[in-house]
Amino acid sequence: MSSDLEQRIVDRGKMFFEAIGGETPSVFNRSWWTGKVLDWSMKDEDFKVQLFRFVDVLPCLYTPESLSEHMADYFQSSSGDVPAVMKFGLKSAGVVGKLSNGLVAKGISKNIERMGRQFIIGQNAKEALKNLIKLRKEGFAFVINILGEATVSESEAEWQLREHMQLLDDLNEMQKKFSPLGKSSNGLDWGTEPMVSIAVKPTAFFSQARARDPEGAVEGMFQRLAPIYRKVIEIGGSMCIDMEALDHKEMTIELFKRLRSYEEFRDYKHLSLVFQCYLRETLDDIKDMVSWARKSELPIELRLVKGAYWDQETVQARQQGWDIPTYTIKADTDAAYERNARYVLENHDIVRLSCASHNIRTISAIMETAHQLNVPEERYEFQVLYGMGEPVRRGLKAVAGRVRLYCPYGDLIPGMAYLVRRLLENTSNDSFLRQGFVDGEAVEELLRSPIKKADEEREAKPAEKPVPLGELGPFRNEPMIDFAKPEGRKEFPEAIARIRKDLGKTYPLFINGKDVSTSEMLDSYNPSNDKEVIGKICQAGKEEVDQAVQAARKAFKVWGRTPYEERVGYLQKAAAKMRERIFDLASLQVLEIGKQWDQAYADVTEAIDFLEYYSREMLRLGKPRRMGRAPGEMNCATYRPKGVAAVIAPWNFPLAISTGMVSASLVTGNCVVYKPSRLSSVVGHGLVDIFREVGLPEGVFNYVPGPSSVMGDHLVGHPDVNLIAFTGSMGVGQRIIEVASKPRPDQHFCKKVVAEMGGKNACIVDDDAELDEALHHVIYSAFAFQGQKCSACSRVIVLDSVYDKFVERLVEAARSMPLGPSEKPEFSMGPVIDREAQKKVQHWAEVAEKEGNVLVNRLPESKDADLEAGCYAPLVVVDGITPDKSIAQEEIFGPVLSVMRAKDFDQAIEWLNSTRFALTAGVFSRSPRHLERVNTDIEAGNIYVNRNCTGALVERQPFGGFKMSGIGAKAGGPDYLIQFMDPQIVTENTVRRGFTPIEADDDWI
Amino acid sequence: MSSDLEQRIVDRGKMFFEAIGGETPSVFNRSWWTGKVLDWSMKDEDFKVQLFRFVDVLPCLYTPESLSEHMADYFQSSSGDVPAVMKFGLKSAGVVGKLSNGLVAKGISKNIERMGRQFIIGQNAKEALKNLIKLRKEGFAFVINILGEATVSESEAEWQLREHMQLLDDLNEMQKKFSPLGKSSNGLDWGTEPMVSIAVKPTAFFSQARARDPEGAVEGMFQRLAPIYRKVIEIGGSMCIDMEALDHKEMTIELFKRLRSYEEFRDYKHLSLVFQCYLRETLDDIKDMVSWARKSELPIELRLVKGAYWDQETVQARQQGWDIPTYTIKADTDAAYERNARYVLENHDIVRLSCASHNIRTISAIMETAHQLNVPEERYEFQVLYGMGEPVRRGLKAVAGRVRLYCPYGDLIPGMAYLVRRLLENTSNDSFLRQGFVDGEAVEELLRSPIKKADEEREAKPAEKPVPLGELGPFRNEPMIDFAKPEGRKEFPEAIARIRKDLGKTYPLFINGKDVSTSEMLDSYNPSNDKEVIGKICQAGKEEVDQAVQAARKAFKVWGRTPYEERVGYLQKAAAKMRERIFDLASLQVLEIGKQWDQAYADVTEAIDFLEYYSREMLRLGKPRRMGRAPGEMNCATYRPKGVAAVIAPWNFPLAISTGMVSASLVTGNCVVYKPSRLSSVVGHGLVDIFREVGLPEGVFNYVPGPSSVMGDHLVGHPDVNLIAFTGSMGVGQRIIEVASKPRPDQHFCKKVVAEMGGKNACIVDDDAELDEALHHVIYSAFAFQGQKCSACSRVIVLDSVYDKFVERLVEAARSMPLGPSEKPEFSMGPVIDREAQKKVQHWAEVAEKEGNVLVNRLPESKDADLEAGCYAPLVVVDGITPDKSIAQEEIFGPVLSVMRAKDFDQAIEWLNSTRFALTAGVFSRSPRHLERVNTDIEAGNIYVNRNCTGALVERQPFGGFKMSGIGAKAGGPDYLIQFMDPQIVTENTVRRGFTPIEADDDWI
Repeated sequence: MSSDLEQRIVDRGKMFFEAIGGETPSVFNRSWWTGKVLDWSMKDEDFKVQLFRFVDVLPCLYTPESLSEHMADYFQSSSGDVPAVMKFGLKSAGVVGKLSNGLVAKGISKNIERMGRQFIIGQNAKEALKNLIKLRKEGFAFVINILGEATVSESEAEWQLREHMQLLDDLNEMQKKFSPLGKSSNGLDWGTEPMVSIAVKPTAFFSQARARDPEGAVEGMFQRLAPIYRKVIEIGGSMCIDMEALDHKEMTIELFKRLRSYEEFRDYKHLSLVFQCYLRETLDDIKDMVSWARKSELPIELRLVKGAYWDQETVQARQQGWDIPTYTIKADTDAAYERNARYVLENHDIVRLSCASHNIRTISAIMETAHQLNVPEERYEFQVLYGMGEPVRRGLKAVAGRVRLYCPYGDLIPGMAYLVRRLLENTSNDSFLRQGFVDGEAVEELLRSPIKKADEEREAKPAEKPVPLGELGPFRNEPMIDFAKPEGRKEFPEAIARIRKDLGKTYPLFINGKDVSTSEMLDSYNPSNDKEVIGKICQAGKEEVDQAVQAARKAFKVWGRTPYEERVGYLQKAAAKMRERIFDLASLQVLEIGKQWDQAYADVTEAIDFLEYYSREMLRLGKPRRMGRAPGEMNCATYRPKGVAAVIAPWNFPLAISTGMVSASLVTGNCVVYKPSRLSSVVGHGLVDIFREVGLPEGVFNYVPGPSSVMGDHLVGHPDVNLIAFTGSMGVGQRIIEVASKPRPDQHFCKKVVAEMGGKNACIVDDDAELDEALHHVIYSAFAFQGQKCSACSRVIVLDSVYDKFVERLVEAARSMPLGPSEKPEFSMGPVIDREAQKKVQHWAEVAEKEGNVLVNRLPESKDADLEAGCYAPLVVVDGITPDKSIAQEEIFGPVLSVMRAKDFDQAIEWLNSTRFALTAGVFSRSPRHLERVNTDIEAGNIYVNRNCTGALVERQPFGGFKMSGIGAKAGGPDYLIQFMDPQIVTENTVRRGFTPIEADDDWI
Repeated sequence: MSSDLEQRIVDRGKMFFEAIGGETPSVFNRSWWTGKVLDWSMKDEDFKVQLFRFVDVLPCLYTPESLSEHMADYFQSSSGDVPAVMKFGLKSAGVVGKLSNGLVAKGISKNIERMGRQFIIGQNAKEALKNLIKLRKEGFAFVINILGEATVSESEAEWQLREHMQLLDDLNEMQKKFSPLGKSSNGLDWGTEPMVSIAVKPTAFFSQARARDPEGAVEGMFQRLAPIYRKVIEIGGSMCIDMEALDHKEMTIELFKRLRSYEEFRDYKHLSLVFQCYLRETLDDIKDMVSWARKSELPIELRLVKGAYWDQETVQARQQGWDIPTYTIKADTDAAYERNARYVLENHDIVRLSCASHNIRTISAIMETAHQLNVPEERYEFQVLYGMGEPVRRGLKAVAGRVRLYCPYGDLIPGMAYLVRRLLENTSNDSFLRQGFVDGEAVEELLRSPIKKADEEREAKPAEKPVPLGELGPFRNEPMIDFAKPEGRKEFPEAIARIRKDLGKTYPLFINGKDVSTSEMLDSYNPSNDKEVIGKICQAGKEEVDQAVQAARKAFKVWGRTPYEERVGYLQKAAAKMRERIFDLASLQVLEIGKQWDQAYADVTEAIDFLEYYSREMLRLGKPRRMGRAPGEMNCATYRPKGVAAVIAPWNFPLAISTGMVSASLVTGNCVVYKPSRLSSVVGHGLVDIFREVGLPEGVFNYVPGPSSVMGDHLVGHPDVNLIAFTGSMGVGQRIIEVASKPRPDQHFCKKVVAEMGGKNACIVDDDAELDEALHHVIYSAFAFQGQKCSACSRVIVLDSVYDKFVERLVEAARSMPLGPSEKPEFSMGPVIDREAQKKVQHWAEVAEKEGNVLVNRLPESKDADLEAGCYAPLVVVDGITPDKSIAQEEIFGPVLSVMRAKDFDQAIEWLNSTRFALTAGVFSRSPRHLERVNTDIEAGNIYVNRNCTGALVERQPFGGFKMSGIGAKAGGPDYLIQFMDPQIVTENTVRRGFTPIEADDDWI
């Protein structure tokens, strides 16, 4: 940017500020409640958190009791009252006293509602009309956006369609009362822009828009947006497609293109798209879009925003292990905005620009750039948000003329969510409005080049510490696949095709470093198509088990004494191998056990996580620890391996859980006899390949699939097996515990059993739950991978007051799930693992009929699903269930969800705890007092608050339950490896002839 | 001290230094090997440690291989060779090359021997005579001391007696060749002192000198020292009684008084006693002694030293939790020396002073003080050590005239031990010789007032951090009783008498906060006298068990949710109660289970330790821990109680182990049903009293003694018992594990069993072991509390080359142990717990006859032991045992020690590991390469190097074994409490409406 332009921008900005003349945006006005409270929240971060959370939950507090309770929970200090600032103005309104009398609570809640309304153009057409007329009189154009809950079902998407059609009809009526703004002879504002404009969020129109299937998503959204756009054209309006979170970006761009270039619509140009300048890749996206427009010869309009999902994008990226897609320095975003806008302005012949910003520096830069580039006035406009930054909008109006207000419209409940976003924006440290109008930052600083600001901030950041050579860095979960990027979507079908070529091979046992074939064999088949044989697996009998145990025992002599750092080295190499072939390993699971892409991929990342985490854990635990600090003695605590570990693994997380149990055994110095599930023995054989490749010494790892009825007890009870690591059903687990408890006469140790068993997990939906969130997570927890997870949600306990609303939406959501073969990304649920499981689920579907009221019972409707050859079982939702019913007690391990109506939170917890299991649980609630009870009152190893109850991650959510759900420490947690070792203390008397070497950590004199 | 005197001291010191004229003591002479090596060791602390340790072991390296190996192990660097300094001079002696050729090792070992000889007057009479004549020619008197191994048996004490008599005969012969020193007309040196003088260490003359029985010790020592002193008198010599470690001080003073005032000897005045000025209480001791001398009208002689056991005293005090008895600032000792000497000089009419010091400041101070007080010259003399500080002795000779050299005499093996002490003294940072002659400290500083130096040093020390109010300080083991102080010796008989008055009461059950009587009763009796009934204990049946479990289950609802800090509060109060009545609690054990005083006391301190340690552990584990640091989620890991714990305790540590298991259960939030052993139910009832007094809510702790055959399985298998904490035999433990593994139909959880079971522990005595130490510890480990500890040493595996010597001494030591009733402190071993145990030991004594060669089979010989009424079982030592013998495999739980001859260290380890057990083990070795293998090769939970294999302390030696010795984590260690809880993770999605509160420990951007 030329320094000449830079100077003009600054000058322009100064003029802008002068024109405003010290006016303050209304939200910051401290004469009013909102200003006071925001001011307080900017000073006290804890108060801010509580305030925003309370604002969020407020619309769900229907009774005075609930309101008072929540307010007390969120705000009450030790003095027993809410902060004085919250009660500002109530006294003059005649409301005094403590929270307990209810009036104060009511008063505060009214103030918050009022605060919310400030940002909303109207809750209904009448209200909106009044405000719109007023706005237009002041000379502002508008774009209207319907506030909405998340769309979790197709019936909700239909409702959205109807709402938007209605709004357009209403607007059409209204516009008869409007006169065009500016100089206009054609009924258009400023002579070029339709008077009616709406903004739409595309995911509102299709409930199944998933990143892994963008084509399906675009098609789904198009089907409902086309009629809307048709009506927009009919009434001579304009439509803007809002950009949402990053995982919908690609499909939104595609949707825009499809609508814009659709034969019927291509001659109508008033369709715009939003780009978010906080995304690093946005300039590329804009360039692609401009080049598409030129190629298609279709003029377009782009609205540039900074972006409203910064927290969400960065949190998600951190949680998933992805590169942060946004700029992390605010000034970088500001700089990108100027850069992107300049590019658009340079292409003003084909792209019209909407500049949406409250930042006076940004606005000045756009203005001056446009002047510099001689962009005609009608080729750009400015936008600000309704209810925010009034001085800016007035200043803009004066200078630029063409100002549009973005006006949310609709109910208070989604309105409150919108309010939180706005409050957040206003109170953020980086907020221009805050800096400019509250913090009183100098005008020069506010107007300074963002490029320079960003550079300075970058330099001020401390450099990251490099990991010392030869050490492992801190543990990080292996990144989850990002289907918003096209690579993953491309890799999967290719890998599946590759794997498919290789199917049907014979898999021998692996004992003492050698392949061992048996005459007994078992086929493993694809659950989506039982004619497709994945592999033929040799089956071990007692004799082979004996050989494997003997090999392991022999290998233990050396392996048990191998330095733990060396053993860690093998795990590290295995992790690298898995990373290399992650798509192949995942694709094999898609075929052998019918996992959806994301589910299969997550299984492999979890396997890698176990290798990486247990590596680090062993480095931690392997180091001898001094106990006590008495001088003259050295007490060294270490752990030693137990000997031979039998690892008996399940099929549902066939690589992850196997790898977890095997790697924990190996890294601690035990040798392993590994028995995979018969249903996933080909996946299990992957471990043979990997451990062979990394050069594990012979006998250290042995692979012996085989029929449990023949060799199960024999393996568990073998007098040379020290340790059994098992994950599977409660019945088998109990059997193992019992067999292991009886020492054989020639057995010289007590066996250790580490057993993860079943669950009958419930989620509670509290009466103040955020239902959008609850619905999304309950559906996922119950039906992802067909509910075949020990952590899956099998019961949802809904509080009476939200029951009807929740269940209605739940049923529709369950009806909307696309069912079909797992290898196709458009389906969210596929077949169960085998014929036996299919029969079992069918049986429970029948029980559901008897014990409750079946609300959903679905099989795949798609032609892609071969109902004969695939092991499809019905997706069932049944309500009217109480704890006495068998369906509320027994583990089903399939897509059957029982819905229970609880009269209150106490009963919900009682019911949640009413089974023999204690594995996972979910609670959706925004009541602090209820959430406080979660930890003490709920019986479950892993409890999830306001999220799904599956998908525990290594280290972050060490996994495992108690009661009949398991014995032992949590997998992927800090207590896990200890179970595979025996503790040992060596106490040395270090005094010799009175001579006592002094240690640095002696508790000496 | 007057400043005038102070000035004179400094002046005198300066003159002294000038007189010496820069001469260096021979040990520091860097032209010689010793000087070079000491110089190096003063610069390199690690080298010093290795050097001193090597010097210590050297005399035991009989073969060239052993010598080379040890030298390599101790000194070899990564370059594969010993440091060059060690080879100094070897080249000129024609020895070159690497260690491996053996010649270098031989050369170095010769140099070390030479270094040792420098401090010894002679290894035999002939050598000594030559050197003594030389010394006396130079004008020095001498006092001679026989270097000796520790006396571990009465036959060794007899040998010491004979050696000393022989020495006196030899000296008597020699003195015929001497002429008196100084002006003498009466054949006495300087006219007043006998020419022949010996110093004796009193513990050499009685193998059973124990602090808890000083009267017995004095009597034992007197019996052998009287004939020696008689002969001293006969030959007209003098005798000095050396002071050893603090725990023998009181008896040594008493011994001195008894000898001095003994009718036959009271007219002969040449008996002196040593006092150590580093002890804080020495001035009081001197005052007492002077006043005794005046009262008895017996002139005495005192030798003042600084003290040679500083490391040992301070290490012991720290390890036992006692106040440090010595000054911790060296200058304080110097100041005390001057103070003490002044007091003696003030009383020179009745006490003659020997001033033993190499410190020129000290010497100057004594001289000037004596002048100031006009002390006649013959009333004090100076002493220095032979072979050390030659310039000082020559300076002294010139100035003071009366200088005596302390001359060690005898074999090289004990000589090496002496050498280590001397090297330590010379190389210590605080050493005057080092400061004066090596570090070259300024004369002014060397001569400065020690009072000022000490004050300065005190001020420079950082103040100790106080424990924040309301927090517990760091864990410290409860101090062990110090029988060297008279209080404990007085308290015990009083407490026993008190307890005895109360015997024979009836003890009801304690269920749900109430006493519950039953018709079924059982007597508990004193093992030393089966006619003495300790108490009548009500016996629980199944019904009472059900009541107790029900009460516990009910109480759990509240107790399980009681904040852990509150639960810790109860434990803290219980610990305070136990501390208050520690002697009563210990004395009850003396009577109910026949523990010796120290053993009983240690049981109570361990109980207190468990309460204190688990309190702190719960404070550590109770705090929720965040897992991972991903933003937008909070993963909180906590532990929750399991429910009802059945605690099944043994009788041998009746309070400690019960308290450990009970307090671990309680503090983690479980309610307890406690079943003590039938043999220690009265001690067990002590917990009822204490928990009642501290106000534990009803039902939280229930006491149900009862017959295992009737109610054992019922309790363990009870469907409402979540957890069984057991300590006892392998058989019962296995039964419990098996019963607990089978869930009853109405049981909703898997039971957890924490089981400590038996041991068959062995100690290895390596061919380079320090045998004094090994003997002492093996005897203690095998026979203390009659071998009735699961940790007791039941086998001693001795390497062939030291076998004969070790076993001979072992047998004599075993024969010397005084056997008799436990309540009398003179006996080291008493009766076994009951008739059944008695029969069992008798049976094994018979087996010993068949399987091996019985070397010792003893019953009490004392009249105090009632062999009819007491459950006395024989103390047995049997050799010729190999691992195939039943006596080498089965747990005996009595005073039966099998001795096994192993051909080498490999075989010793193989034999050690040859049983089903893996509890404790001992290794006595000074071979670094052997000690390195201890951790990996020995199968035992607690391994002890160069000390006894019993007496594990909470925190410092967390206790427990593996194989068939137990399952679960170590008691008193950091993994223990986790077993009593279930882990739980609460994962909260903290993002609401995109708003993400940022936590301080977020892994944020």
